[in-house]
Parts: sequence; structure tokens; C-alpha cells
Amino acid sequence: MDLKKVLNDIVHEIKPELGVAKVADYIPALAKADSHKFGIAVTTVIGETFQAGDAKVPFSIQSVSKLFTLTLALREVGDGLWKRLGREPSGNPFNSLVQLERENGVPRNPFINAGAIVVADVIVSAAKRSRHDDPAGNILQFVQTLADDPKVRIDRIIAKSEADTGYRNVALANFMKSFGNLENEPEAVLETYFKQCAIEMNCVDLSRAALYLANFGRDPLTGDRIVKSEQATRINAIMMTCGHYDASGEFAFKVGLPGKSGVGGGIIVVVPGKMTVAVWSPGLNKQGNSHAGTIALELFAAKTKSSLFGTTGRKH
Amino acid sequence: MDLKKVLNDIVHEIKPELGVAKVADYIPALAKADSHKFGIAVTTVIGETFQAGDAKVPFSIQSVSKLFTLTLALREVGDGLWKRLGREPSGNPFNSLVQLERENGVPRNPFINAGAIVVADVIVSAAKRSRHDDPAGNILQFVQTLADDPKVRIDRIIAKSEADTGYRNVALANFMKSFGNLENEPEAVLETYFKQCAIEMNCVDLSRAALYLANFGRDPLTGDRIVKSEQATRINAIMMTCGHYDASGEFAFKVGLPGKSGVGGGIIVVVPGKMTVAVWSPGLNKQGNSHAGTIALELFAAKTKSSLFGTTGRKH
Amino acid sequence: MDLKKVLNDIVHEIKPELGVAKVADYIPALAKADSHKFGIAVTTVIGETFQAGDAKVPFSIQSVSKLFTLTLALREVGDGLWKRLGREPSGNPFNSLVQLERENGVPRNPFINAGAIVVADVIVSAAKRSRHDDPAGNILQFVQTLADDPKVRIDRIIAKSEADTGYRNVALANFMKSFGNLENEPEAVLETYFKQCAIEMNCVDLSRAALYLANFGRDPLTGDRIVKSEQATRINAIMMTCGHYDASGEFAFKVGLPGKSGVGGGIIVVVPGKMTVAVWSPGLNKQGNSHAGTIALELFAAKTKSSLFGTTGRKH
Amino acid sequence: MDLKKVLNDIVHEIKPELGVAKVADYIPALAKADSHKFGIAVTTVIGETFQAGDAKVPFSIQSVSKLFTLTLALREVGDGLWKRLGREPSGNPFNSLVQLERENGVPRNPFINAGAIVVADVIVSAAKRSRHDDPAGNILQFVQTLADDPKVRIDRIIAKSEADTGYRNVALANFMKSFGNLENEPEAVLETYFKQCAIEMNCVDLSRAALYLANFGRDPLTGDRIVKSEQATRINAIMMTCGHYDASGEFAFKVGLPGKSGVGGGIIVVVPGKMTVAVWSPGLNKQGNSHAGTIALELFAAKTKSSLFGTTGRKH
Repeated sequence: MDLKKVLNDIVHEIKPELGVAKVADYIPALAKADSHKFGIAVTTVIGETFQAGDAKVPFSIQSVSKLFTLTLALREVGDGLWKRLGREPSGNPFNSLVQLERENGVPRNPFINAGAIVVADVIVSAAKRSRHDDPAGNILQFVQTLADDPKVRIDRIIAKSEADTGYRNVALANFMKSFGNLENEPEAVLETYFKQCAIEMNCVDLSRAALYLANFGRDPLTGDRIVKSEQATRINAIMMTCGHYDASGEFAFKVGLPGKSGVGGGIIVVVPGKMTVAVWSPGLNKQGNSHAGTIALELFAAKTKSSLFGTTGRKH
Repeated sequence: MDLKKVLNDIVHEIKPELGVAKVADYIPALAKADSHKFGIAVTTVIGETFQAGDAKVPFSIQSVSKLFTLTLALREVGDGLWKRLGREPSGNPFNSLVQLERENGVPRNPFINAGAIVVADVIVSAAKRSRHDDPAGNILQFVQTLADDPKVRIDRIIAKSEADTGYRNVALANFMKSFGNLENEPEAVLETYFKQCAIEMNCVDLSRAALYLANFGRDPLTGDRIVKSEQATRINAIMMTCGHYDASGEFAFKVGLPGKSGVGGGIIVVVPGKMTVAVWSPGLNKQGNSHAGTIALELFAAKTKSSLFGTTGRKH
Repeated sequence: MDLKKVLNDIVHEIKPELGVAKVADYIPALAKADSHKFGIAVTTVIGETFQAGDAKVPFSIQSVSKLFTLTLALREVGDGLWKRLGREPSGNPFNSLVQLERENGVPRNPFINAGAIVVADVIVSAAKRSRHDDPAGNILQFVQTLADDPKVRIDRIIAKSEADTGYRNVALANFMKSFGNLENEPEAVLETYFKQCAIEMNCVDLSRAALYLANFGRDPLTGDRIVKSEQATRINAIMMTCGHYDASGEFAFKVGLPGKSGVGGGIIVVVPGKMTVAVWSPGLNKQGNSHAGTIALELFAAKTKSSLFGTTGRKH
Repeated sequence: MDLKKVLNDIVHEIKPELGVAKVADYIPALAKADSHKFGIAVTTVIGETFQAGDAKVPFSIQSVSKLFTLTLALREVGDGLWKRLGREPSGNPFNSLVQLERENGVPRNPFINAGAIVVADVIVSAAKRSRHDDPAGNILQFVQTLADDPKVRIDRIIAKSEADTGYRNVALANFMKSFGNLENEPEAVLETYFKQCAIEMNCVDLSRAALYLANFGRDPLTGDRIVKSEQATRINAIMMTCGHYDASGEFAFKVGLPGKSGVGGGIIVVVPGKMTVAVWSPGLNKQGNSHAGTIALELFAAKTKSSLFGTTGRKH
């Protein structure tokens, strides 16, 4: 399989899908994104990297960051995390409060906003216990290390912008706090959460950073164990069932691989045992996932026969 | 990999888990099941069959039947089915009416009861259009053919018992009818639904019957195309995200394979491209899935390294 | 206060409001109603009757019947009724299943459909215990006696029509049965329920029949005690807080009197200690209450200064 | 009717009910309240005042303040208020977010917390438009004037304590802001809201302050018009249907008068056209209303035959 050719073909085939979907515009800094951009990068467990299109252009990873904070929280507290957080699909919009009320402040999974805020709370508590009380800094450093790129950064303007307009997230955090499911003050947890969402990196970085998930929790290039093998399996399973909000079932069908998307237009996908694929294109479909990115991953799964469930729909 | 030995080892290792969990008791006919029973069978795409324990003892497949009716409905109406039915996890109990009300009578997926009733409605309508107006008979014949066993039967006592006590399902059907999402009278649809749940077959039959799902929609032994390749992928994806009620995420982690369970204690699992595994043990865990059956599948996935997401938790 | 003149003035003033609102059309028999009709009748506790317009034209009382069945059930089982039924406003549509699921099959109050079905169940059980196992007949006889008019009848065509299309009510009844909150089979209870809704009487009958509620539970003209004084207070309080579905608060403001409306266009109102007022006009406002009837009652409350809460809005 | 004797009798009869119920303890300042305290005061529209027990001991009025802020907001923006706020009972706990999500951030009525926060937002906006940008000060001054007592004050310790622990209210405010139903920043609105809840006054003050509601919106003693006659009717109707959280129906039955309770143990009741009654006793029943206070009002309604709906239950 010539992955270089696969990626180039995708860049060619995806062209009609660029510029047709609207970018996220709930904050000005995201609204400026160019919906004609498209990047794709693959990193394999033997260390090859393939890239095409705008694979080196940095973008705001937004909810893709939930993958890395979940990993970090599992390193900190292990399976104790699941006392405060479920691992089942939610069947509700990503920012719904209804289920949270019915289930007494315990979010369904770490990829809906409420769940990611609990995860951030774990990281804030861990930072307090350490000498280095900078939870967002800890997250950034962790992602930089995973990506092996110190240029990965937090965009302070986006973080500030999120904080200024994130009333729904403030509601979620305070709601959980009222149920006793946050250890720290909502303000501190949200500051960390808004910063993690504002992490900026490119497709090559992203595919590199997630490589441990394709290799049973160990970074195959450095040999470092990032999480236990079982924890990596757990994260992949959650990506499969909950990674794309209320389009997770659809993604399972169309792509057939564990993945996590963000409203900045990035998606990371894991081919267990083999490789990771990162795509980015800022135009979003109506479920809030990258329009061109999702199609590109369908093409990728079809061309490489990577779907875990059989053949997929997108012709190639 | 010596599958015969794997199954025998599982039968040995599972012993402490037998007899400890309660069987379904909402109808007398199910309450009589013996929680010490355990069977397991594997059928591979090249036609080998392995079995151990009570693999030839027939049991009530209950919700596992939803897999076969979904297949039948897709054969009848194709993707038109999805106009009346979602394909996303529900995040609610299997018989909840709440989400149905919020979403105007459109069930989230074909594996919650409401969704399976819509699927049954499609089959009732198809039977009416044909010369052979016996929808439950059509389902039975389809499953017999798939299992290559004319002894697969409908247990009339169980079907009657379900009908006599199935008030919640009557509520679901009438609720959807009030939204206009049933073509036929609720009574006729439910008669079919209660009968399909009362299908009785054994593990060997069940693993044989589902084999097309491990082979891109084509029965590898007869060569018959059961559904299109993409439809098989679709069904596998739905099994992965929605196959175990509100424990689907947990099953994805522990077993890592598409599966469908029933309250009779049966579970069918697909290893795409390779084989199917059927287990049966009537004692249920608190999510309503077979207690020993789930553990046996964890053991199977671990021993055969079949999880699609990496290594799984159950030690072996 | 010249009540005759008040009613005549209302008949005159209401003319522009006739024929402008749509009648209920979910069953053919109701869809035939003439939205230009308007009747009003008052019966005072000293036995005077005043009437104007179509006050002697019979109409389908529909949900107004819930008042009489509630009374009958309280006579049968007293406050034991409240173990199976709440007495608080619902804040949800009259036929919602959501709250019922959250509150384990216990309806919020006797005036939402679910609650009225529980009330009907009580009456079915009582009929079984008696020698006269005809619950709908018992209800009819009770209303005939209250109205002092043997011509009050059940319209069998409407009852049949409701039964044929009442899927939502079938859902409600079966849902409650699944929670164990119906003693009888849903079918039998619904037969009674659909018949009670099909009771046909005129405004004069209706104002006469409800007179006990204006007189502390005793019929002031016959001297018969219908319910205990406290039970009459209870019924009045429930009419005030729950009598008009999701427009009960609005009715409390605009009219300021306990009342109960039906989708046939009838409304009964109680002026405690003084009189009852029945209105009828089949055109419905968007909350499902009689358009002209509600306005007529606003005029009545304003002209007679009857609002329990102060002056009301409708100018006169 | 000798009101002095009625109140003295109530003080005597209520004794067994004192000290048996728990006081609110979600903030320390309220937890210190003495559940043996009981006060009652009546002010009539002709200016008589009757009092008994601890009627001159100041207490935290908490949610009773919602009555006065609703009045103030109606003075500011008139019926425009109802574009942002419903007037129907909620059928949900006072601090639920579920209904708010279903109804796009529009609270059901001004007496649930979400509704009162919208009302506070109106008052904050009005203060900004005036030269005197001190919304809580404006509320206090309004209540002082109504009560004709400059000693009415805001307890800053309680306000601070509410603010420090009021995560659920922070969630509600931010949730509504995310729907665009707050004009001001949640923080500013909540500061006002927490202060209004911390208003401290005694029973005599409270019965005096609400007197305009018993007199068609005009203060009968000063002659000042506080709100339009129709607005007073509206407020009374809302108190009847929504004044006691999820026990409003029960209060309508047992007392039969418009009322508003607070978690500090105070309740104000309006006898339209006649008088107001204020009671206070800090022990709360399970619905969060004053235990002894509610019983005292039942006794009052029974002894004075004041229920708007007939005779009430509490024997005397």
C-alpha cells in the first residue's frame, strides 16, 4: 500500500468538498479559519510519516484535546476516574444538561463537554499536589512531548475568547459542582479547560502525538509507556462509541475506526496496531465535525481497507 | 490458534461464574432457565465449527433476533429504513419513552425495543405485499435458512407470555403509531415482534446464522449474498455502538467486537473477516446481558487477541 | 346583579369571536362541530338557572368528564386515590409520557390524560366489586343524576372513533400498567375512558351537574351530599391549578376561578359559594381550550367581579 | 371575627409543631436559625395590624423576595416581561435545568429560581439606565418603602454565603445567558439575586409590605399605586399556581389562598380584598416550605373561612 499516493489521491479527490461548509463562528478567532484548507498526515507504528495538503499548518484542536487530557487523567488517577465519569455513549447533544440532571452530575463519558470538565478537574487537582501548579502548562507539555514538537502552543486569544463566551460550559461546570462532582472551583477548572481547547498544532504533530493509541499505550518510537495497554484499549473503545458527538454511530459506519473530532476542523483516527491519521479542514458538517475531513477519512478507510467492520461506503 | 482448546479452556475457566447470576424472570417460561448452563460455539468463514459446553441446547434468543430482523428489513426496503429510524446510540434504557417523545416517535437505533418494533413493522408491511402474509413465519424461515437448521423454531408459550405481559412494548408501539411512525396496527406489529423474540435456537445455529456478517454480507459457505457489503458493515457498526443496551461502551472495551445480546442469555459476536462466536448462559448481569457469556467473550477476545481496539482486560 | 342581562350581553359581545377558531378535528365526529355555536348557562346555589345562546344544544364534554369521574372515584376510595395519583400541576403537555417515566408511572394530577385513566381504573374496579359491572354506565348514571336530566347520553360513535385513533392514550395506559399502576387490563380501562369522554350534554345540564362544587360538596337543590366538603375544596383547588392543561396559570389570571375545559369546546367554572357557569363553543385556541368560551368567561368574571384574585383583564 | 384571638389561638395550637422540623442548612448563616421560633402577623386593608409570637423577630425572606422583585420588574417593563418568562406552573423542582433546556432558556414562571434570575436581570438593566446603578439597593429601598420600615436590611453575610455556594444558581444563570435570555453578565445578575434573597425583615413588616396585593395593586394606607390592578391580579394568580414550588397544588387545597414561601421559613399569604398574613418558623417540611408556618396558615384559613375554594382540612 503506497500511503503517499493514497494521501495525494485524497487531496485531489477532496477538492470539490473544500469551501462548501461553514466554519465554526461562535468566537471570532475560529471564524477567521479558511474553509478551503485541507491537510492530512499519517504516522505509522514503525515511524514513517506521510503528509499531504496543509498538513503543516497549525490549527486549533479544540475537542481533540479531550483525548490527551483523558490520557493524562488516567495516568494520574487510573481507573478511579470512572467513579466520577461514565464510559457510555450519551445520545444527547454534546453540551446537554438534561442527562447530567437525571444522573446526578455524573457525565456519560469523557468526550462530552461535561465529562471533559471532570477530566480537567482531575488534572487541576494533580497540578495542585505537584510542585508545578500550572495544569494547562502540564497539558501543553504533555502534548508537546507526545508530538515531539515544542512549537505546539496554546493560543491565548482563543482561550480568552472561549472563556468570555462559554456560558454553557460555565453552566455545566457549576451544575456538576452543585452535585459535588468537581474538586476545584469551577472557575479554575474552566480556565484549564478553555486553554486545553485552544491548543494549536498541525496534522503531522497530531498524528505523531496519538501514536501510542495505535501501539497498545506505548510510544513505538521512543519506547515510552504513555498509558497501560488496557487503558489504550479503553480510550480506543470510547473513541469508537463516543468520539463524534451525536454522529458517532455514523462515523463507525462510514470510517469504522476510533476517532475524535474537534470544532476547529481537526480529526484524529487510530488504526489499531498500524498507524494514526490526522486530518484538518475547518468547514463543519451539521453534526459539528469537519465536512471534508470526515469524507477524507472515509476515502482513506476505503482505499486502505482499514474499517474494522468491513467495507465502507465512499467509492474510490 | 487452536480454537477447540480455546473453547474448552473457557468452559473450564467460566465454571465459577455459573449459577451466580439471576435469570430473567419477567415471564415464567424464561424464569425456568438453568443459570448453570453455558454453551459456546464458533463458526469460521472457511466453514469450521467449534463448540463446547451446552452449545447444542436451544435457548430463547430474545433481542438477538433484532439482528436478523434488521437484516431482513434492509433487504426489503434498503436505506429507506433510516428515514424512520436512527443509527446512533441511545444513552437511555432499552425501553425508555423519553427520547422517543423528544424525537417525535423516531427511535434512536434498531436495537432498542422501539427501533426493533419499527423494523418489525417493515416486515409486516412486506409480508402484506407478498402472497405469504405471515411475517413471523418469514422471519423464522429466514433464520432457519441462515442457520441451515429447520429445527430453529418459535416457542409459542414464550411468545404468548411476552404478549400477555408486554405492556411497556404495547406502550412503545402505540406511542410511535400516534406519531405516525408505524404503517400497521400496533397489535399486528407486536404479534410479530413477540414471536421473533421467542425464536429458539442453539449456539451452533446462532454462530452459523450470523456468519454473513463476518464475510461482508455474503454467506461464505453457500455463497448467497444476504445483504450488500456496505449493509453488513452498517450492521456491524451498529452492533458495536448499540448492541448491549446501556453497556455497549463497556462491551466495546472489554470484548472489542460487534455483538448483540438477548435477555435469554445469548450473545452473538462478529470477528470481521474471520468468524462468529455465539455464547449462552442464562444468568444476567445488572445491565441485562449474560453474566458468564460476557466474561466468556472477554476471555475469548483476550485468548485470540481479537479485540479491534487492542488488548483487553480479562486475564488468561 | 342581573345575571340574565350579563349572559345576554356576553352573547352579544362574543359574536366577533365566533367562527374564527378551528374545531378539534382528530376524529371526524368532532370535526363536524359548528364553530359559530355559543352557549352559556349559570346555575346558582339557590336554584336559579340563567341561560343564553345555544345553552340547550348538547355537545361532547370530553375532558370535562374528568371532573365527574374524579368525584366518583373519591366517593369510591376516598383519599386512597392519592397513593396512585398526584395533585400538582404538570408543566407538560396533557398527553406527555416523559414525566410519567421519571415518576414511575404515577401521573401528576387527575386532569392530565394519564391521571384520568388511573381514575377510570378505580371506577372499573369499583364496578367489578358491585353487582352492576358497567363502569361507563355507572359514570353516565352519576352524571345524569347530578344534571337531573336522563337525556344526558354517551355518543357511541364518538367513543368508537376515540378508541380507533387513541394510540397515545393506549400508550399511556399500557405504560402505567407496566409500572403496576393499573389494577385492570388497559383495554377495559380505556373502553371506560373513551366512553366517559363521549358523554354528551348541554350547558344547562353541565352547570347544574357541577353545582355541588359551589356548595361545599352538597347538592344545594336536592340536599344530597355528593362528596365531603373537604373533597369539594380539593377538587376546586385542582381545577384552579390544573384545569386547563398548560394554560392553567393563564386561566387563573384571566378568569380567576376553578374551571375545567374539554376539547369539545365546553368549560365549566365554579364560583365557590355562589354558582357555576358552563360555556360551550367548539372553536379552540392554541392551548386546546374553547376560544370564545374562554373569552366569555373572562367577560363573565369581569362583569360579575367574580375573580378570586382581583380585577381581570377583559374590558366590559 | 376577632383576629387577635385567632392569632393567639394559632400560637397556642402550633406549639407541638415547633422544633420538630429541620431548618435549611445549606449555608451556615441559615443553619443557626432556631426551629422553635414562630411568628404571625396580619395587616388588613383598613390598616389594622395583628401579631402574635415572634412577629417582630427579623428573618431571612429568601424566595419571598421574588414577589417584590416581580412587582418591581412589572413596574419597569410591564407585560414585556412575559416575552422572556412564562406564567405557568413548572411541575419540576425549583432549580431544575431540564425544562429550561427543552424550552430554550425561557423559565416557566417568575418563582422558580431561573425565572427569578430573569426578573433580577430586568432590575439590573433598569438600574443601569437610571442614575442610581445599585440594583440590590433599589430592591431594598422598594421593600423598605412598602414595609414602611427603614430597618429592613440585606444581611451581607448571608448574601456572601449564598454567592459562595450557589453553584446551581450560577449554572442556571449561565445556561440562560447561553440562550441569550439575560441582558447582563451572569455575575452581576446573580450578585443582585443573592442580595435580594438575603433581605431580612419580620412578619409585621412582611404583611405590611404585601398589602397592595390584597388591594388591587394600590397600597390602601398610603394611597400609592404600586402596580396596576390587573398586574396585582396576575401576581396573585401566579402565587396561587406557582408559589410553593412543587407543593403549590397542596397549598391551594390546604390553605386556598395565593402565597409565596421562602427557605428561611417565611410565608406571605394574600386574602384578596381583605388582608395579608405573614408567618415565620424556620423548620422546613420536605417540600422546603415552613412546616409550622404552613400548618398555621391552614388553621388561619379554617378559622377565618378564608379559603377561596371552600372548607379546608385542618380542624380547629
